[in-house]
Amino acid sequence: MDIEQYMHTLGQQAKAASRILARASTQDKNHALLTIASAIREAADTLKQQNALDLVAGKAKGLDAALLDRLELTDSRIEAMAEGLEQIASLVDPVGEISNMRYLPSGIQLGQMRVPLGVIGIIYESRPNVTADAAGLCLKSGNATILRGGSEAIHSNQAIAHCIQRGLELAGLPTTAVQVVETTDRAAVGQLITMSEMVDVIVPRGGKGLIERVSKDARVPVIKHLDGICHVYIDGQADLKMAEDIAFNAKCHRYGVCNAMETLLVDSRIAEQILPILQQRYDAESVELRGCDKTRAILPMIKVASDEDWDTEYLAPILSIRVVDGVDEAMDHIHQHSSGHTETIVTDNYSTASRFLAEVDSSSVMVNASTRFADGFEYGLGAEIGISTDKIHARGPVGLNGLTSQKWIVLGTGQVRV
Amino acid sequence: MDIEQYMHTLGQQAKAASRILARASTQDKNHALLTIASAIREAADTLKQQNALDLVAGKAKGLDAALLDRLELTDSRIEAMAEGLEQIASLVDPVGEISNMRYLPSGIQLGQMRVPLGVIGIIYESRPNVTADAAGLCLKSGNATILRGGSEAIHSNQAIAHCIQRGLELAGLPTTAVQVVETTDRAAVGQLITMSEMVDVIVPRGGKGLIERVSKDARVPVIKHLDGICHVYIDGQADLKMAEDIAFNAKCHRYGVCNAMETLLVDSRIAEQILPILQQRYDAESVELRGCDKTRAILPMIKVASDEDWDTEYLAPILSIRVVDGVDEAMDHIHQHSSGHTETIVTDNYSTASRFLAEVDSSSVMVNASTRFADGFEYGLGAEIGISTDKIHARGPVGLNGLTSQKWIVLGTGQVRV
Repeated sequence: MDIEQYMHTLGQQAKAASRILARASTQDKNHALLTIASAIREAADTLKQQNALDLVAGKAKGLDAALLDRLELTDSRIEAMAEGLEQIASLVDPVGEISNMRYLPSGIQLGQMRVPLGVIGIIYESRPNVTADAAGLCLKSGNATILRGGSEAIHSNQAIAHCIQRGLELAGLPTTAVQVVETTDRAAVGQLITMSEMVDVIVPRGGKGLIERVSKDARVPVIKHLDGICHVYIDGQADLKMAEDIAFNAKCHRYGVCNAMETLLVDSRIAEQILPILQQRYDAESVELRGCDKTRAILPMIKVASDEDWDTEYLAPILSIRVVDGVDEAMDHIHQHSSGHTETIVTDNYSTASRFLAEVDSSSVMVNASTRFADGFEYGLGAEIGISTDKIHARGPVGLNGLTSQKWIVLGTGQVRV
Repeated sequence: MDIEQYMHTLGQQAKAASRILARASTQDKNHALLTIASAIREAADTLKQQNALDLVAGKAKGLDAALLDRLELTDSRIEAMAEGLEQIASLVDPVGEISNMRYLPSGIQLGQMRVPLGVIGIIYESRPNVTADAAGLCLKSGNATILRGGSEAIHSNQAIAHCIQRGLELAGLPTTAVQVVETTDRAAVGQLITMSEMVDVIVPRGGKGLIERVSKDARVPVIKHLDGICHVYIDGQADLKMAEDIAFNAKCHRYGVCNAMETLLVDSRIAEQILPILQQRYDAESVELRGCDKTRAILPMIKVASDEDWDTEYLAPILSIRVVDGVDEAMDHIHQHSSGHTETIVTDNYSTASRFLAEVDSSSVMVNASTRFADGFEYGLGAEIGISTDKIHARGPVGLNGLTSQKWIVLGTGQVRV
């Protein structure tokens, strides 16, 4: 198989399909989404059979238990895929939305129209449900998709792809609107991320290693986030009970997620009051605490936080704690160590809250709320293709709008430049 | 001089300055802009003296007349620079604008706040006025800038930089907010476009060669446009007088600009009526016409358009003309040959106009107006840093908003995820 030629063909087919998708009606796109959902439900047995092939091969290859768990398609996961597609069908179609129409002195009317990006390449790892989720979001936003899943999920992904093809066909949309790469050859990824004439954006979904590799070599714009090193800063003028609840929730609600807090910053004015209370709550959940010298002066039994700790996304029941002198030192720490994902301040001081909101340069900045809210569903986007910590285009949770852009439209009555 | 170390230092200084600029008040930024404008006016003699050094060196190097003209700083050009800065001061500050604040079911309030991108690298060629324009737009939008002008303008650029430094200092802003690279070593560009930890966006301004080189090697996102291959399509149901005026204006208003028409598409239903009239008007301006076979069947004396013509940005009094069968064939041609800059349809048919607006995938799509309107000033942006033909982030004329992004902000009253 000539990988370059193969990927080139997928790219050209996707580009041709993208023109048809861009003008497809909301009704046709929703019909396709619902038909794919039905096809997935009906194919549950086939999906599980094909998935079993991947699981057997994965065990033989010695994949660890966590990876095998992510790889598995159970009845409830198959149902969740179908429901996810139905939910995407229920979202408002972003394509064609016109905003800011106004008359200009020359007499032309100027506005902006939301349009699909074109062709989106998705590169992901073991979880086969991404195939349906990502295809659904791209389809609803009028984009053609080329999906490249992990080699360990190849049978599962092909089986899901088959359901997608059926749904597209029944809805009268081109089956090339969603294409799943059929080879496990790694060269296919190299091609996909450099075909800038045929692919408009790449979205890598997976571990940091995957995202770094993709970003390093891509010649196509990448929507990505690398780390979620999120901070909670408890200000000296915080409501201490509120601060305690938010700091506890941000760490302990779920550990393995990118919007969990990894470092807690505590104002020296209230550190002695709140740290012992927090320690009790974290101890009850067996969260390991690592502190700076000032923290350890109050909580002497905890470990020392090393320089490395401040730059680590634990994704685990571990928390680093630093005592700072006010919001400026807190923001300096965040500026230096944050990954630009999400930061929260807990304070009842108006000016301090305003400064934190304005000056912290992360994709989500919060006052008196848990970092765990930084999420496409919680933000009402309906679903998310990922969370971007880049600064251009979409920041934070990327939903349907993030898969579109806005072109200028001009309505005239014969105007010319004078 | 160690270029890598030098550029690294500029980058770190810019990053530090960007935090201060991001929180600078509108008043302080405007004060700096006005002070820079005064400093430029006061330094007119020095600017012309330094510019003379560049002109003498340029002549000695054998630069052509067009390049020497772009390089020259006359009294009126110096005044235009100062006025440009005053105009930027009068624009609305985009930073801090909050939009779409709404309550979500969880009780949090969610919105988006417009914030600067951070550090912007500008790479440009001979015209020294770009130094003041670009610095002004970046300053107003709260971004730090590193400017790398052409080596042929080094004395002029340094002299303008000196005025900018003075203005920043008098306004109490860090002088490192705008830094002009002092070396003409090309390695400095290579550094600038790959320092992704310190530079957030690169804007190349200049010829296609420069932009291609920068884009090819950049590891930092680039806001760019390569070509302006703009089309006018005259539909069979157009008002022929309107069509004639628009087709004439789009080509002949100015030749060397990116929003000038390069290819005219004419519906076969009205080609015989309108082409002879247009030929007369173009002949009067000595515009060279090159046509497809169908065009030449009507205008037999004109040259043959080769395959290459459809992909050429003439920037000259040359026009390629193609007769097409209706809007579908016109859009197919545009899809294949357009650079994604600007396309216009002239029609009085509602459905045809709607389809053209929705389906043509260019940064500006127009109905019954000249392509020449695709411009930051005409769009009311006040000024533009460039025109983007990329699909993500900003499309078309990029003004102050294109130098910013939107972060999510959350206002809570103690909410945690349940």
